[in-house]
This record gives sequence, structure tokens and C-alpha cells, in this order.
Amino acid sequence: MPQHQAGRPTLASIAAAAGVSLPTVSKVVNGKTDVAPATRNRVLALLAEYDYVPLARKGAEPESPLVDVVFTALDSPWAVEILRGVTESGLEVVVDSLSARAGRPSGSDWVQSLIAGGRRGAIVVTSRLTAADQRRLGRSRLPVVVIDPIDLPGPEVPSVGATNWAGGMAATEHLVELGHRRIAVIGGPEAFLCSRARIDGYRAALDRAGIPADPQLVRHGNFHHDGGYERARDLLALSDPPTAVFAGSDEQAFGVLEAARQAGLSVPGDLSVVGFDDLPMARWSSPPLTTVRQPLADMGRMAGRMLLELINGNDLASQRVELATHLVPRASTARRT
Amino acid sequence: MPQHQAGRPTLASIAAAAGVSLPTVSKVVNGKTDVAPATRNRVLALLAEYDYVPLARKGAEPESPLVDVVFTALDSPWAVEILRGVTESGLEVVVDSLSARAGRPSGSDWVQSLIAGGRRGAIVVTSRLTAADQRRLGRSRLPVVVIDPIDLPGPEVPSVGATNWAGGMAATEHLVELGHRRIAVIGGPEAFLCSRARIDGYRAALDRAGIPADPQLVRHGNFHHDGGYERARDLLALSDPPTAVFAGSDEQAFGVLEAARQAGLSVPGDLSVVGFDDLPMARWSSPPLTTVRQPLADMGRMAGRMLLELINGNDLASQRVELATHLVPRASTARRT
Repeated sequence: MPQHQAGRPTLASIAAAAGVSLPTVSKVVNGKTDVAPATRNRVLALLAEYDYVPLARKGAEPESPLVDVVFTALDSPWAVEILRGVTESGLEVVVDSLSARAGRPSGSDWVQSLIAGGRRGAIVVTSRLTAADQRRLGRSRLPVVVIDPIDLPGPEVPSVGATNWAGGMAATEHLVELGHRRIAVIGGPEAFLCSRARIDGYRAALDRAGIPADPQLVRHGNFHHDGGYERARDLLALSDPPTAVFAGSDEQAFGVLEAARQAGLSVPGDLSVVGFDDLPMARWSSPPLTTVRQPLADMGRMAGRMLLELINGNDLASQRVELATHLVPRASTARRT
Repeated sequence: MPQHQAGRPTLASIAAAAGVSLPTVSKVVNGKTDVAPATRNRVLALLAEYDYVPLARKGAEPESPLVDVVFTALDSPWAVEILRGVTESGLEVVVDSLSARAGRPSGSDWVQSLIAGGRRGAIVVTSRLTAADQRRLGRSRLPVVVIDPIDLPGPEVPSVGATNWAGGMAATEHLVELGHRRIAVIGGPEAFLCSRARIDGYRAALDRAGIPADPQLVRHGNFHHDGGYERARDLLALSDPPTAVFAGSDEQAFGVLEAARQAGLSVPGDLSVVGFDDLPMARWSSPPLTTVRQPLADMGRMAGRMLLELINGNDLASQRVELATHLVPRASTARRT
């Protein structure tokens, strides 16, 4: 056996220890198959014991291409769900946040550093893909996939989203089935396409049930806790308040729960609440939140696979993929009493 | 002006457009200062206009070293807080998850791929740094910093944590000041040092207040929602139940809120609840959660800075850094009635 040495073991020392020639060890390292199984196993055991790590060969392809996943900011539990999916798609993932980048010498020029950093592509989870960014990405020939863009990108940019319209319809149908008629909806900012699609799904479900839509019950707020809290306070102060609220995100729905608590209303006894996203914390609210599951990890995984196809020079089956949402009934919705 | 070309602009075409020599453009690109300001500005404007990106030079140092941040699994909102901090410390961050890696051909051998992938170091946020991993990291000479290890690593491994003992004491003193005497604590698994430190802080606060510790009121569960929910159900079923619970994590505290709701108890009217972590969703629970803030993003930023020092060949001021926790009072705690 070779002595344990301070530095890296050499292939020669491993060959000596295994009692084989250097070319034989080399074949095993390079995955060639013309080595007797017993010899191969002896060499592999020694390589493992001495933590032999091949030096990166010039021009060799890494096992998994290195790509950037670009967020506007790392400020949402959303991000970790998407990252989990992307890391499971066979890519090595560099996390990038436009807000963190703003503090660096290279400034906000993420497209330039993407190219300079030798990345093989990028997944963009942000509203800030400007026309200029798109032009220079196009010139760089780096493949890019966009997740859930606020505006649908041009048809030349591959993107992954969720079935927002169907999700809005499922949430509203659930409430209709529970006997609710005064059903409010809180959307995100009006400019966001995902939000418009959810509200259109809400209207379609009311229409199918023969319930006239009341414009007073349609509100817009930011997707955060205060957006839900403030719009819910307004709704609960109406002379004919809703008995159920469909919120545009889980975070908004938590704000609705808090507005109900402050108004002395019990959920779901006095008010039913449905969220959208199914973040892990939807299970942790009190009561646990009925919500529309948006498969964020699956969306990350799908975006990763599409990017891998593009990196490998293949065509995509479709430039736009929408993954299915589905209703997850928990304890925040109940039959109207 | 040079024509817009399909490929990358060359320095020669930019020199021609600026009406200067190629060496002058080269000086501007390389940040040399012996160029007249007006010339320099003209060249920079053209470089920007044509999205000129220098090809990576052989052996050149990247602006920000590429490092791995290794999690056991990307399954907690925790992760995004830490990542935000690390990305703000001047490093380029590859997210790595041992659970995602388990599905890849190279298997779980993250130390080997760290070396083979040309990373400059790693931040490890996981309990699974085995002795074998530590040995091979030592041999690789790659700098590593550990965040909040379950067991304190050997003195040779730099680490960042939070002041768990002081946090446990602050949470308990807050409850004592509100007049509570029957104060329960739910810790994480007994083997976790962070959890032991928090419970020791709880005992110290009771001791200072002259309140005898009741072993019935000290429970251990996993750090997740069900850990808090199940232990709280046991505590609330005692013949002399607590009027306040200090939970080992926010997620556990959400489980306590749900156990209280199911028992028909109002929070904070009948039961005060304190969490630990101050994840973003602590503000979103109903009522909003009083909790001990663990500065996760600051811990990530500190770990990043320490790693950067090590990469630059500098010594660390300290191998172990603990950042301060502090109590954030919200609406889940109230004076004992």
C-alpha cells in the first residue's frame, strides 16, 4: 500500500499499490471497459480510498452544465421551491439575484457576467427581462428559459408557467359547491397576466353556476400579506360582505386570515378562504389553508430540462409549457352556514 | 461607426469606430488609467453599445470566486434567507443539495465534484459533514465554512452560528415579564446543540426569576410543524397546563398555534406562544408570531466573507462566529390573565 501523503495521490502511486500498470489505472479512471473486473474493482477501491479526483481536463465537458437561475430578489419562499426543481434536472445551478448584483462592481449587468462567467445558459424567474436584455441574450446565443413571466415573452423565448385560468376556476367552483354565492376575489396587480387569467377563471366558474358577478367583489392588491390584508378589510366592511374570498397568493390569503381574526370572524365558520401557490407554509397556517397548488418545483424541473435540451442543441417540442394546477382542500373552507 | 455584425464585436472594430488605436481600446478594457478621460468615455460607450464581453483569459481570476453552498435538502424557507446573504458577500454561488445530488450519476460524492468542478470553496449548511468528508476536504485544501452545525465542528473548521443560549433566555424573560409562571419549552431533537443551548437559556431565565423548572414542561420534537403540534397537544392535556410555550422554531410554533386552535384556546388570550428564527412567514401567521430573530441572511453574509478571506489566503480573526439573536415581539404573546 502506498503511504498516505500530504498531497494528492498520483495515478502512479495507485498503480503501484494495485500492482498494475499505469495505463491500466488510466483506463479505469477514464471508464474504459477493457479491464478485467477484479482488477478494475481493486483499482476503484484504491482510487476511492485515496480520494483520487481527476484534474479537470482542458475542453472536457462538465458532467452537468453550469447555468444561472436569475431571480429579481431572493426574498420569497417561492425561490427555494423553484431551485429544488432546477437542481433535480441535471444542471449545476448558480443562484443569481438582480438585487444582490446591484451592490457589485459589475453592477446590474447580469447578461454580460453570464457570458463572461462561462455559463451555458440561464433560467430567468423575473419580470425584469428587458428588451435590451433579450437582444443581447439573442446575440450571445446563450439559451434562456423563462419561468412564469408576468407578460408572455415573444414566441422566440421558451417559457414555463402554470394553468392559472384553470386554477382560478377550480378555486371558485370549490366555493360554489360549498354553497357560497357572495364570493370575492383578490387578484395581484392588474398588469400581471397570471393574475388576469386567475380572475377570468373565477368569472367563468360564477358564470357556469349562474351567479352574477358583482364588480364590488373583485379587488386588486400586491401579491403580499398587506395586499391581502388591506383588500380583505375593505371587503369585510361592505354592507353585504362576501362569505368567501379567493386570494391571488398564499401570502395574500394569510393577510385575509388576519383581517378576519381582527374583525372577530372565525375561519372557516364565518368566512371561507382559498389561496394560490401551495407554498409549504400553507399547511402551517391556522387553520391550514385550502389553496390552488402551483407546481413550482415541477416548473423548475421542466425549465431545467428544456434548457438542457437547448444546450444540447435540440429543438423543443413546445416553446411554451403550462403545468397543471390543482385544488388542495384543507381547513380554511367550509359549507356556507 | 462599425456595422452591426452577427458575431461578437472585435476590439479592432471598436477601435476603428472610436478613431483610436487598438492598444488604447485594450488599455480601457483592462482598466488602465493612462487614457485621456474623453477617449476613455468614448471607448466605454462603444463597448457598452456593442455588448463587448472580454473572453475569459486563461488563469485570470473571476471577479467573484465560484463556490458551492451545500444544503442537506432544498426544503425549507430557511435556505433562501441564507442564500440571499451569501450572494451579497461577493461570491458567485452554486446551490447544491445532497438530496438532489443523490439522483445523479456521480451520486452523493459532493466533495469530489466540488474539486472537479473547479470551485474555490464551499459553505456547508448541513448536518451531514462526515469525518470522511472533512478529511478529504482537508486534503483538497479547499476552504470550507460551516453554518449552524448541529455539532460544533472541530476547531479547524470555521463556522458561523447564532447566539442560541441568549435567544432562549430572551424568549423566556419576555414571558416571565408578562406574568407567566407555567412556561413550557419545546426543543428540537435532543442531540442538536443549538436546541440544547436554547433550553439552557430558558432554564437560566426561570432560575433568575426564581421560578422552579418543571421537567414536565420541557419537551423535545422535530423542528417541523408536526413536532410543535404533537408536543403542544401533550402539554395542553396536562392537568396543570402551561399558559405560555416557547417553541424551538417558527415552524414548531405554527404547530402550537394549530393545537391551541383545535383545543378551543385563543392565542394570546389563553396561551402565549414564542417561536425561534423569524422567517418571513412569522409575520404572516394569525396572530403574527412573537419570535426570536436568528439573522439567517447575516449568517450567510458572514460565512461568505469568511470564505472569501480564506480564498484570498488570509487568516480569520476567529474560527467561530456567533451572531446575535433578538426578540421580536408581535401579537402571539400577552400578559397572563
